[in-house]
Amino acid sequence: MKHGYMGKFLRVNLTDKTFVEETISEKLAKEFIGGAGFGLKYLFDEVPAKSNPLGPHNKLIFSVGPLSGTSAPCASRMAVTAKSPLTGAVGMSLTGGYFPVELKFAGYDALIIEGKSDEPVYIWINNGKVSFRSAEKVWGTTSIDCQQLIKDELNDQNIRIACIGPAGENQSKLACIINERRAAGRKGLGAVMGAKNLKAIAIRGSQPVPVSSESQFNQAKTSMQNAMKESPVLYSTFAHTGTPLVVEVTSGLGIFPAKNWSETGVTTPVESLGVEANTAKKVGKEHCYKCPVACSQLKLVREGAYAGAMSVPEFEAMYCFGGQTGVNNLDSIIAADRLCDELGLDTMSTGVTIGFAMELYEKGILTNEDTNGTKLNFGNHEAMVRLISEMAYRRGIGAVLADGVKDAAAKIGKGAEKYALHVKGLELPGYDVRGAKAHGLNYATAYTGADHNRGYAFQEIFGIPVPETIDRFTPDGKGKLTKWNQDIRTATCDCPTMCAFLLDMAFPATAAQNAADMLNAVTGLNFTAADIEKVGERVNNLARAFNVREGFTRDDDSLPERILTEPLKEGGSKGHYISKAELNQMLDEYYTERGWTAQGVPTRQKLLELSLENAVAELEKAGALS
Amino acid sequence: MKHGYMGKFLRVNLTDKTFVEETISEKLAKEFIGGAGFGLKYLFDEVPAKSNPLGPHNKLIFSVGPLSGTSAPCASRMAVTAKSPLTGAVGMSLTGGYFPVELKFAGYDALIIEGKSDEPVYIWINNGKVSFRSAEKVWGTTSIDCQQLIKDELNDQNIRIACIGPAGENQSKLACIINERRAAGRKGLGAVMGAKNLKAIAIRGSQPVPVSSESQFNQAKTSMQNAMKESPVLYSTFAHTGTPLVVEVTSGLGIFPAKNWSETGVTTPVESLGVEANTAKKVGKEHCYKCPVACSQLKLVREGAYAGAMSVPEFEAMYCFGGQTGVNNLDSIIAADRLCDELGLDTMSTGVTIGFAMELYEKGILTNEDTNGTKLNFGNHEAMVRLISEMAYRRGIGAVLADGVKDAAAKIGKGAEKYALHVKGLELPGYDVRGAKAHGLNYATAYTGADHNRGYAFQEIFGIPVPETIDRFTPDGKGKLTKWNQDIRTATCDCPTMCAFLLDMAFPATAAQNAADMLNAVTGLNFTAADIEKVGERVNNLARAFNVREGFTRDDDSLPERILTEPLKEGGSKGHYISKAELNQMLDEYYTERGWTAQGVPTRQKLLELSLENAVAELEKAGALS
Repeated sequence: MKHGYMGKFLRVNLTDKTFVEETISEKLAKEFIGGAGFGLKYLFDEVPAKSNPLGPHNKLIFSVGPLSGTSAPCASRMAVTAKSPLTGAVGMSLTGGYFPVELKFAGYDALIIEGKSDEPVYIWINNGKVSFRSAEKVWGTTSIDCQQLIKDELNDQNIRIACIGPAGENQSKLACIINERRAAGRKGLGAVMGAKNLKAIAIRGSQPVPVSSESQFNQAKTSMQNAMKESPVLYSTFAHTGTPLVVEVTSGLGIFPAKNWSETGVTTPVESLGVEANTAKKVGKEHCYKCPVACSQLKLVREGAYAGAMSVPEFEAMYCFGGQTGVNNLDSIIAADRLCDELGLDTMSTGVTIGFAMELYEKGILTNEDTNGTKLNFGNHEAMVRLISEMAYRRGIGAVLADGVKDAAAKIGKGAEKYALHVKGLELPGYDVRGAKAHGLNYATAYTGADHNRGYAFQEIFGIPVPETIDRFTPDGKGKLTKWNQDIRTATCDCPTMCAFLLDMAFPATAAQNAADMLNAVTGLNFTAADIEKVGERVNNLARAFNVREGFTRDDDSLPERILTEPLKEGGSKGHYISKAELNQMLDEYYTERGWTAQGVPTRQKLLELSLENAVAELEKAGALS
Repeated sequence: MKHGYMGKFLRVNLTDKTFVEETISEKLAKEFIGGAGFGLKYLFDEVPAKSNPLGPHNKLIFSVGPLSGTSAPCASRMAVTAKSPLTGAVGMSLTGGYFPVELKFAGYDALIIEGKSDEPVYIWINNGKVSFRSAEKVWGTTSIDCQQLIKDELNDQNIRIACIGPAGENQSKLACIINERRAAGRKGLGAVMGAKNLKAIAIRGSQPVPVSSESQFNQAKTSMQNAMKESPVLYSTFAHTGTPLVVEVTSGLGIFPAKNWSETGVTTPVESLGVEANTAKKVGKEHCYKCPVACSQLKLVREGAYAGAMSVPEFEAMYCFGGQTGVNNLDSIIAADRLCDELGLDTMSTGVTIGFAMELYEKGILTNEDTNGTKLNFGNHEAMVRLISEMAYRRGIGAVLADGVKDAAAKIGKGAEKYALHVKGLELPGYDVRGAKAHGLNYATAYTGADHNRGYAFQEIFGIPVPETIDRFTPDGKGKLTKWNQDIRTATCDCPTMCAFLLDMAFPATAAQNAADMLNAVTGLNFTAADIEKVGERVNNLARAFNVREGFTRDDDSLPERILTEPLKEGGSKGHYISKAELNQMLDEYYTERGWTAQGVPTRQKLLELSLENAVAELEKAGALS
């Protein structure tokens, strides 16, 4: 090992406005790699059980992987981790763009934010120099204005900024963290930031990111680039359409949800939501640092009431503001997406919550009295766009909806919970799991709640036979598959940190070896592919231990009643649903594959095998280890 | 003269995508200084009589003064000049911020844009390197998004950009040009840019701005800074309130117009529009390059339907979206102001046009049929904000209003012209001239139409006895005063280029000497104070010659019927108006003071005295010289 691993993190305390640099041990780096791994490790060790997610004991951890800041393609990613106010479970989201590498250039692999400031502040990190600055002026600004104002205030247009919008300030549990035009979107991490009175983190750095072996690195990078070129979709299709392509794919499979999952996007108006529709035009492509693909398709509304709105409406925005709400007006979807970015709301949970409210309105559970006269029917795009602002500011019916479907259902009562589509409080993503059962099991078991990104079953969507050919309708084998999907995703994407699309579309079969080669070249830590896979398992077990310590049980590994009782009525998955028996079969297989108890608790043996001694101690303390 | 004057301009032809650098002669610099002087000179010499303002023969001239880019305070100003599509007369507006000095740093005192591109383009000027780039992607974007997208595309966050919004693309005659959060706002210059298919000009420069004598410069600058410190209002008040202060001043004088000038802002709801009102908070102060005052008060709406909107609502925005429309909701004024900036509309003309439409609606001249059901009464702030977007995109009633009150009145007929408050097509600024008659004469005679900035009678507003004590109600002496105001403003602000607030608030009595001292230090051109004043007269005469050549006559030096016939009904100017006889008296005095004929045409003698030989030749050709 020539240069060796020299990781460093910055610990910032907002209560007393102090900070300290700490080194990251080789042991930690070998066991957790970086990114989400570091996030989980710090979260488990440092946030006491049952802490209030919006209190001073929660921590907010920004962590990049060893590949970030090198010339490795698609590695400008960053994990943001905290206890989620939306779920009470682990909250971990990833973002891309330029802020992640700037953190690395400023000298840090991770930034741990503790405590709570009395007054609104932002943190300014300039190449290792840290200062706390009043955010009184920018408090209340939108994410776009906030970033520009801070650049102007610090007189440096090259600063990169992660910030919250008004939604985060108002501690909406759907609030996200925005950097540039990107988001660490889900699980209410923006509310954690808002509760700490932290408006933004501004970073500027120019430190080189050392690479242990240049020759190894170039070899591994070339091999990775070749694998990307050989992908049947990455450059040929995906680079030109981005994720909205998935609208067509899922509609074809009959799993694009419509109208709060009461219909399917095959015969509903969402059919018309193709890659191009209405008056929007493609403005350009956006890419993260050193990404040769540039999947983000920036779109601009040219005419009508939403003219001038510009955003990157990803597949999930098309789902949540299109299918889910029955809105077939792409212009309004772009406007809604943009508004969420400006106000700092997670598009997905926001859209799902609006679709939920629309069904309640159609069912008479919400009335004109509740909505202040707004006719909240499916398809009403004006109401949809207006609701976003009301949710961010907790105005009118927005006050009821601002914290997502689970909280809203509890407030509304009258059987509303039946229409609340969530797992552990996190609203469902845009894959109707009734026709994609590994997705269903992943929603039920992912450590962050119903999160397609924690173990995306690309096998079911794109027919990729890795690690083996599967049938999307059967529950058989989905336990084993889901464990593999969750661990490989964690190990090769969330920790190193690398873009998940490489796993899904470029080299699913060799992702672990690729990660090992790249990481070894950069860190000199001599990972094998098996080591990498083991990190995935380790992180997922530690996350599970966190959730068990918080009180989560097998009962929480469930799916909404609609999924378990209402078969799909039409399209390519017609007649299918996930029966309670099927879910239990899948859970049993999954727990067995994971080496967990039938109640879904990691065993002492499994935890020790993964060197998670602290998890053993903590779960023993909680009386959770049998 | 050590370094001497070394001005340079860049001539860009959009038709054939060529460019050439040309030097600015010492003679030109001595006769016109820079800024508006250069703009007028090039406009007169190069844009043929009767050219279509939206055709390829019109030119768009961006010109800074010799002081821009030096460390002189308050000199980051730039004139933008073209034949105005709104008035058919000279169109010249000034802007501040950072773009002006960046033009200088890139090596140029002026940029002349000729011809018309077939396809949307933007011009990229990087330290003397010029390129034409496709603007297909950014066409349709708002001014804020456009600036960010171009910075991202050129991979340089320090670029400064002047651009048009959708309004300019749609050739609204109210369209402005935006740089950063500033505007060259009035006279439809954004439409000229849009008609040329020019979306933006991006500039980056690092060339030093030479100063002829450092010691002279430091001495002059110190003297200027001292004068600024001695101002009774500049740092003590104005720096903290900015122009909104003038709402109180004009309300006190009974000259803050309300409801399309049918009332006065003393007893109407606009009384409540103080410096702070409603839910807005001050976010901070913005300043132009090297400005120690920072008058721009950035405000942010915190609650309600307009929450998140942020802008710098200047006095004129308070007038046009407040008094003029009868709206007393500051939040909506900020939202309207911001929307105008994003869409690239002149706030002033836009607001005046909306107030005009509101009076037509109240009078029954516009009906619900025309407005598509919108109740367009005075005070309806929702309708006001919606109309802005409709005007920018020429949607609904916005299609009728998009080109200002004069065009709209012609389209609407039914006596609407009676309520159209403009001179030469330019909508009236926020000083009710019935109680400030030098303002009235300036509106009537300024070469750009009803433009308070061309000869602002600060004497009438702030009681400043320079050059002498005046009575704001009498027509007597207003001809002489207006000539002085117009010439001194042109000479000491618009040409050098320096901020007009220095003249109004810091050193009105010594402005010419200050300009001479500063300019001599920088250019070595040995101006006397008398030379400076002469430049002001020269530019105003050349501008008048331009307008005469276009066919303007004494009849165009008029005021709206309401001003000439309806006395003010209340407040500190109650009972006053400007009778036709008073206007004629003032015009006669003004023409005499100017040495023009009774028809308002510059005489051969005057033009030759000012070395305007080309003007003589051109007016002779036009048969306009008697």
